[in-house]
Amino acid sequence: MLKELILRNRSYRRFYEEEKISLENIRHWIDLARMGASGRNGQTLKYQIVLSDEKRNQVFDTLAWAGYLSDWDGPVEGERPTAYVIMLNDEELGKNYFSDDGIAVQNLLLGAVEMGFGGCIIRAFKEKELRKVLQVPSNYKIIQVVALGKPKEVVVIDEMKNEDIKYWRDENQVHHVPKRKLEDLIIGNL
Amino acid sequence: MLKELILRNRSYRRFYEEEKISLENIRHWIDLARMGASGRNGQTLKYQIVLSDEKRNQVFDTLAWAGYLSDWDGPVEGERPTAYVIMLNDEELGKNYFSDDGIAVQNLLLGAVEMGFGGCIIRAFKEKELRKVLQVPSNYKIIQVVALGKPKEVVVIDEMKNEDIKYWRDENQVHHVPKRKLEDLIIGNL
Repeated sequence: MLKELILRNRSYRRFYEEEKISLENIRHWIDLARMGASGRNGQTLKYQIVLSDEKRNQVFDTLAWAGYLSDWDGPVEGERPTAYVIMLNDEELGKNYFSDDGIAVQNLLLGAVEMGFGGCIIRAFKEKELRKVLQVPSNYKIIQVVALGKPKEVVVIDEMKNEDIKYWRDENQVHHVPKRKLEDLIIGNL
Repeated sequence: MLKELILRNRSYRRFYEEEKISLENIRHWIDLARMGASGRNGQTLKYQIVLSDEKRNQVFDTLAWAGYLSDWDGPVEGERPTAYVIMLNDEELGKNYFSDDGIAVQNLLLGAVEMGFGGCIIRAFKEKELRKVLQVPSNYKIIQVVALGKPKEVVVIDEMKNEDIKYWRDENQVHHVPKRKLEDLIIGNL
């Protein structure tokens, strides 16, 4: 059951933009993020939700999409994220957030996938512009942007070959993600 | 369903040490970690599994337990972790692992919880000693230690009061973790 959910939780970059996400759903997913473990229980992570057309467009313009797909400028109108969750670190509460960012975002995305949505973690963005668009106060560091929507693409995991980590799209627009084998990740058993 | 699993996935520090975990189970949980998203798809994380009595004891001696429980030196014999998974970063593959460490450890722990086990992420350890005990090659950075076992304690989430983040144990040895309210985590909705 969990495995099935984790497998369905791929990085989706094209969405049915007409399929809206309710604020209630997003709050539920952030609530799941909230329930994750936190280093020293510091709970320094905060969230900004972006749902309006105006702000979504502005956020979109600050994002870089899919570094390895060099001839693709990101999703076209009609296939763009329906919502964004901006994950911030409240630096006044603590500058070290340990692995909280990944724990929280995984809970959030698994929650989205469970309800038929999906998303993509974006760490490549124009920091100054994004900060300005969202009027992020100076004591918050922008960690990552989570793009969310109803997935409109198929993403599959392949076995990695020749150490080539680059994901790619085939002629049917299926997105392929090469993963290292389990055997290659376990370096010892003592 | 996911929410119930996330809620059950608390940080457990006391275990039924006689309840062993099979290597097969641990490999399954690492496989779940493997299926998580990876920044730039770099997949730089590697894992060392510790199951033997000898190595478990040696690892235990390098760990610091529950910083806020100042009068508690960690689990006594018979309540110690049955296994450890050491999460490493293969620095030759890349020094930046983005939020991969949290994503992976969350998948791993949710997998353990789904099968009736549980664990705790430990980031406070004697790095040199741990590296020596496990003979970790120099190109691997030790990110965190995941202690695993069959939980022998009750952990509950409380609403945080007076900004006090410290977890604590009551007279019945129930472990209380104060969490910030959802409202306090969402700083805007645009």
